[in-house]
Amino acid sequence: MTDRDDLVRFLNEDIPAGDVTSDAIIPDISCTAIIRAEQNGVIAGIEEASMLFSYAGVTVTPHKNDGNRVRKGDVVVSLSGRAKNVLLVERTALNILGRMSGIATRTAAMVAIVNAQNTSCRIAGTRKTCPGFRRFDKKAVQLGGGDPHRMNLSDGILIKDNHLALVPLGEALRAARHHYAYKKIEIEVESAADAVKAAAAGADIIMLDNMTPGQVRETLSVLEEKGLRDRVTIEVSGGIEEESLREYAACGVDIISMGALTHTVKNFSLSLEIQPVAPGTE
Amino acid sequence: MTDRDDLVRFLNEDIPAGDVTSDAIIPDISCTAIIRAEQNGVIAGIEEASMLFSYAGVTVTPHKNDGNRVRKGDVVVSLSGRAKNVLLVERTALNILGRMSGIATRTAAMVAIVNAQNTSCRIAGTRKTCPGFRRFDKKAVQLGGGDPHRMNLSDGILIKDNHLALVPLGEALRAARHHYAYKKIEIEVESAADAVKAAAAGADIIMLDNMTPGQVRETLSVLEEKGLRDRVTIEVSGGIEEESLREYAACGVDIISMGALTHTVKNFSLSLEIQPVAPGTE
Amino acid sequence: MTDRDDLVRFLNEDIPAGDVTSDAIIPDISCTAIIRAEQNGVIAGIEEASMLFSYAGVTVTPHKNDGNRVRKGDVVVSLSGRAKNVLLVERTALNILGRMSGIATRTAAMVAIVNAQNTSCRIAGTRKTCPGFRRFDKKAVQLGGGDPHRMNLSDGILIKDNHLALVPLGEALRAARHHYAYKKIEIEVESAADAVKAAAAGADIIMLDNMTPGQVRETLSVLEEKGLRDRVTIEVSGGIEEESLREYAACGVDIISMGALTHTVKNFSLSLEIQPVAPGTE
Amino acid sequence: MTDRDDLVRFLNEDIPAGDVTSDAIIPDISCTAIIRAEQNGVIAGIEEASMLFSYAGVTVTPHKNDGNRVRKGDVVVSLSGRAKNVLLVERTALNILGRMSGIATRTAAMVAIVNAQNTSCRIAGTRKTCPGFRRFDKKAVQLGGGDPHRMNLSDGILIKDNHLALVPLGEALRAARHHYAYKKIEIEVESAADAVKAAAAGADIIMLDNMTPGQVRETLSVLEEKGLRDRVTIEVSGGIEEESLREYAACGVDIISMGALTHTVKNFSLSLEIQPVAPGTE
Amino acid sequence: MTDRDDLVRFLNEDIPAGDVTSDAIIPDISCTAIIRAEQNGVIAGIEEASMLFSYAGVTVTPHKNDGNRVRKGDVVVSLSGRAKNVLLVERTALNILGRMSGIATRTAAMVAIVNAQNTSCRIAGTRKTCPGFRRFDKKAVQLGGGDPHRMNLSDGILIKDNHLALVPLGEALRAARHHYAYKKIEIEVESAADAVKAAAAGADIIMLDNMTPGQVRETLSVLEEKGLRDRVTIEVSGGIEEESLREYAACGVDIISMGALTHTVKNFSLSLEIQPVAPGTE
Amino acid sequence: MTDRDDLVRFLNEDIPAGDVTSDAIIPDISCTAIIRAEQNGVIAGIEEASMLFSYAGVTVTPHKNDGNRVRKGDVVVSLSGRAKNVLLVERTALNILGRMSGIATRTAAMVAIVNAQNTSCRIAGTRKTCPGFRRFDKKAVQLGGGDPHRMNLSDGILIKDNHLALVPLGEALRAARHHYAYKKIEIEVESAADAVKAAAAGADIIMLDNMTPGQVRETLSVLEEKGLRDRVTIEVSGGIEEESLREYAACGVDIISMGALTHTVKNFSLSLEIQPVAPGTE
Repeated sequence: MTDRDDLVRFLNEDIPAGDVTSDAIIPDISCTAIIRAEQNGVIAGIEEASMLFSYAGVTVTPHKNDGNRVRKGDVVVSLSGRAKNVLLVERTALNILGRMSGIATRTAAMVAIVNAQNTSCRIAGTRKTCPGFRRFDKKAVQLGGGDPHRMNLSDGILIKDNHLALVPLGEALRAARHHYAYKKIEIEVESAADAVKAAAAGADIIMLDNMTPGQVRETLSVLEEKGLRDRVTIEVSGGIEEESLREYAACGVDIISMGALTHTVKNFSLSLEIQPVAPGTE
Repeated sequence: MTDRDDLVRFLNEDIPAGDVTSDAIIPDISCTAIIRAEQNGVIAGIEEASMLFSYAGVTVTPHKNDGNRVRKGDVVVSLSGRAKNVLLVERTALNILGRMSGIATRTAAMVAIVNAQNTSCRIAGTRKTCPGFRRFDKKAVQLGGGDPHRMNLSDGILIKDNHLALVPLGEALRAARHHYAYKKIEIEVESAADAVKAAAAGADIIMLDNMTPGQVRETLSVLEEKGLRDRVTIEVSGGIEEESLREYAACGVDIISMGALTHTVKNFSLSLEIQPVAPGTE
Repeated sequence: MTDRDDLVRFLNEDIPAGDVTSDAIIPDISCTAIIRAEQNGVIAGIEEASMLFSYAGVTVTPHKNDGNRVRKGDVVVSLSGRAKNVLLVERTALNILGRMSGIATRTAAMVAIVNAQNTSCRIAGTRKTCPGFRRFDKKAVQLGGGDPHRMNLSDGILIKDNHLALVPLGEALRAARHHYAYKKIEIEVESAADAVKAAAAGADIIMLDNMTPGQVRETLSVLEEKGLRDRVTIEVSGGIEEESLREYAACGVDIISMGALTHTVKNFSLSLEIQPVAPGTE
Repeated sequence: MTDRDDLVRFLNEDIPAGDVTSDAIIPDISCTAIIRAEQNGVIAGIEEASMLFSYAGVTVTPHKNDGNRVRKGDVVVSLSGRAKNVLLVERTALNILGRMSGIATRTAAMVAIVNAQNTSCRIAGTRKTCPGFRRFDKKAVQLGGGDPHRMNLSDGILIKDNHLALVPLGEALRAARHHYAYKKIEIEVESAADAVKAAAAGADIIMLDNMTPGQVRETLSVLEEKGLRDRVTIEVSGGIEEESLREYAACGVDIISMGALTHTVKNFSLSLEIQPVAPGTE
Repeated sequence: MTDRDDLVRFLNEDIPAGDVTSDAIIPDISCTAIIRAEQNGVIAGIEEASMLFSYAGVTVTPHKNDGNRVRKGDVVVSLSGRAKNVLLVERTALNILGRMSGIATRTAAMVAIVNAQNTSCRIAGTRKTCPGFRRFDKKAVQLGGGDPHRMNLSDGILIKDNHLALVPLGEALRAARHHYAYKKIEIEVESAADAVKAAAAGADIIMLDNMTPGQVRETLSVLEEKGLRDRVTIEVSGGIEEESLREYAACGVDIISMGALTHTVKNFSLSLEIQPVAPGTE
Repeated sequence: MTDRDDLVRFLNEDIPAGDVTSDAIIPDISCTAIIRAEQNGVIAGIEEASMLFSYAGVTVTPHKNDGNRVRKGDVVVSLSGRAKNVLLVERTALNILGRMSGIATRTAAMVAIVNAQNTSCRIAGTRKTCPGFRRFDKKAVQLGGGDPHRMNLSDGILIKDNHLALVPLGEALRAARHHYAYKKIEIEVESAADAVKAAAAGADIIMLDNMTPGQVRETLSVLEEKGLRDRVTIEVSGGIEEESLREYAACGVDIISMGALTHTVKNFSLSLEIQPVAPGTE
């Protein structure tokens, strides 16, 4: 339900003191409108856009569901209501749809590449999201078939290099296990030796950071040897691009997390087209 | 001052119920830390990141100013304070710096291309920003040397195709001029004929939407002929990419606005590295 | 849409912990009620009052529209609903209607005086509004036929005496034009010489501050002589009272702005009268 | 402490997206400034204005205290700090000072008139305040020597004509006394007979609404006769103007409440004058 | 109306980033559900729970009203709607009902004990409530038949020991009476002598703090003797437990206030049971 | 950092329109004050109380740390500052300390009982907290040595009876594991058979709900037999009181969660005593 507050804040960001253009020139008439995909991909943000149009008194008819594949030219949503209100929400709704669909489309592409190699390997997001838009970035990753990873610093334990600069690995894992019974414990390591140490000390998830595919394969085989592979989930992370994805997936890791899914987003192209409603025909 | 509320909200988004990792494993010790650029570009977001670290009681020493060019490896900011507090703000600060610097860096590149052709031609942003992050996206455009364009629907009059689907161009311009004495009036047109009509009817800025460079040149020469060129500012917009930028700039337009500056952002890469402070040496 | 939050905050200001009188003595019955004008004038605030009564579950029937002229005794709005809810909103709604109608009524009177002299001269408000009520004060000025002037410090450039104490006029205008392509630039001057300098330097609007009608006439004729009159909009401001209004309007200025429209408001008198609904007749 | 939030909201109302004038033209320099009274009266709002300037990092030196009498030309507050920050707060601070001092000045004048007749008679405000500014309007009444009356609908029991249209007087008083042991009960009556009924039924305060001075005197003598005068506080209210004030005070009532103190405010005139600080002399 | 904001905040406290369990496993189906009392007592919080379920789009049918006595097994509320939404609100609604009903049940028991001794003696709450839940704690006291006492520090004057450590009793009472005409004045005393002094100086309510029943009886008889008993309301307070209640009530005091009503709450036991709705039978 | 907003909201709840008692009677003087424990136990809330006093400009010296054992009469915190400000925060601070210390004290007692039987068995809280005070209730459980369990519905997966009324156990576990890689999965079961099924299907934590100690022992031995005991964490829950705690702990479970820790709190008794500072001695 907190989404609602966020969405209304996004809208208000665009209208601190009304819509001066509509106030000056648009009469009090009704219109219909259509939001159309201008490219192929996975659509996301329909729920959010619909909420905002409804909030402004516009009737919304979704033609697609969030997570659906759409093709260029497909109608995503149709609208009818007071013309001023459609214009008021237009840009905010398109910004939400454009970013979320961009993320979902890219995630889905990454998932497809990975699953072609390894059907049980997941693509995950990170916390490298646009400030203030986190929950929508994460939802878009999910709609594209990815795992959102932890939502925030309260959500899960992840011991990273900067923690390990302050506390030794073994001590950190002991303290974390002692502190929480209900949370999985993830730790970032940079060598096979540390991966073994972490698995032996009871880590649930081990993130292999900035390793080459070769180093990943080696780490997995050492864990296997020591009988520790089954106890832990293995995630790889750190500068993984579309090109190297296939190779990492083929190593047999469980999860590949990619910051670029949400920190370097290509907007998904959509248009909104308004038609006046002839008086009397409404 | 409203920025402060937004920044604190961004931080709170990451810690709805504390930082569970630090709570479990990090002792109450001091640290120093350094934020470093991991690529070349224009840095932006130092003011915002500094505000957040200060808010969390961390002492901040900026080594660069917002808008400065930085090179890979440059220290941008150094920090000292309670280790838990540095860790608390780390991701939010890097997300802000990464997005804002990404926008500033790209804008500066576009400005350089355009100014090589036409020193009086400006690059401008649009309202295609990340919802909730508008003011920071716009500030980053400015830091990169661009014009922020209107901040929101309250900020300026821009009569677009969806308005003109509801009200004829002449009537729209008359109503706008009658309504506001203090605001410039911009109108989007798709033909040279409409550009002439708009200029004659008193538009202050004419946006040539989705025109080819050829169409832009023709429109400008028709306006020149009719003695209307000097009365209006000419903006071009609509799907302009890095490749075509040079050609548009050479046409002699006043402003080129690009949605991609803020809707399709490439994150600027930075790192934060923590060092413990040995007790007694503090 | 942000208006809604403001209005609800106004209501909550009156009921931090419920309505203790109604809680103690009013049974759970229905009522009808009527809001009546107790003087002649221009009504404003109906949209806001209606929103609040609706928010509290009261059915509202407006008998007038915002901006309409009303006469003493006219019914402005009729209400029906739970008696407790009508009582809850009563004072807040009347306070809004009383202030907004007071402003609209006074503005309309000023506009009538000015237009009798000069049909193209406008009356404008200022930012001298009641803190927290700005947007409603400004809307009331518009409903009375006035121009709201800039809404806030983000809305337009106005270079005033305190700016000019820090930066020379020419430099200020150059910097402003360089900084924004999308905003008109207004500057306050106190002499004909500065008015000429400002017009020549590209100011869009020149505010003649605290000039006598004689000084205004002289300034206009100097601008005319230099061929600069048509390039600029001329506003007069500063302690203009009802009495001197006619004379300023006759000078041929474009806008007269008056702080008193919103800083020295005479409340518009209205009453709210409740009738119980006999059970069974509802 | 909630005042702080309100004051910051007032400031933010003026700067939804920064101060575009200062951003464009004001360099990063220091200044001093002086706020001066431009008329005689009672100053109010210094605490609020000081809080806002401090919030913006400006150093404030008050030369007067809230509630002090000031004369035209007196320095009220002096300021020093970053020029941009002084300019940012200027209008909001002056609006607060202007309205609050206007209310305090008028209240003090009314108190002086009344006390010349009757030293124990009080002037009180009402809830007819500017929406969103209630607490500051009430504080200004107090600083002028008046009684704020109830702050809001949660603050005290006041049974008015609209309540009595729904519940008989006796029943209303009984219910109120039964409901609350900790609150005084006030009731509005329109006849001497109802005043007697109310006093007998245990009302603590009786408001004589819209009575002429003659009717007030008669009501007081009937109460005296019945031995009820000492049990109750007598308030008169309803359209009391400056002219009739003396006469009401002379009747021997305890309180005279006046809506006009806060619904029809004459702004108190103040100015703010900035001086640049020469670099090196700071 | 401010309750609504509080209730939504309570709900959002439980779902900062959605309900991860439902999101993962619950299909988009409808359900019915029943909230049942699991003990005897006085129910409170139905209005609040209903508001929250409605807010989440669930249809609510109350079977009891707030303040009603219920028996173990009674259905309090029945629900129907989207299963995910019922689950979303379940815990927050039960927490509200459990705490409020616990308070109302305990208050009603105390009222019954007291009234068996003295029908005109009231039980009152204090400000010792759970931070953030004040208004609901107070409402629950009222639903149990108690007096809420003052809601907050703005609501009434209560001069306590810590005030009297700073200002002498007589002076404090004089200042309070001078300051407010509309508020009752309560003072806490620890001896019969101070009670007499306070009554003589015009206190409306005297709180006998931490006195034994014997000391209370003595104080009352001294006040009686001096002819001051009828002028004041007598409240006893301070560590009064269920056991001593009867004896204090028998003394003839007007009010007994008990911090334990809200600071030491026994949760009222309720259950919520969900039934799926077979598709097609809805 | 969000704690700060909550704490300020708690304070503002007590002062919607100022502290009317202090405003009327307390001069502008300084004081010192002491907060003292009035019973033995574990103190909690010092950080929160200190934050609030500091926020109000009062200097705070803590004499204990959160989580420390205190004895009746111990000074917990000493204060010095403006008397009005100490009085402003007094009640809110004591309410926070009283509730949090009450919870911590009770939790510590339960932990001691359990650990006497089984040093590896933990006591955990639930989400049965006071609405709006969740994070402080949970923190108090931790300070008393307990595990906070999940903070909210976003924080962890817990499949309960109401979920299982809608989805079969096996399907629910499959869906949960498929949905999240980063979260532990807990499920509530009511029989040994379901415990086995859950453990086999990959649940991380199994909550044995409302089982007698005998049933718990049987379930554990069945799990042991099937070789599943080591794979899962076993929690018991449901109406466990102080008396039965020992017996459950002796069964060999890993966690015992108790709603009563936060839904049925006994306030911890503290006092605040003010001393005026003689002028000149400050």
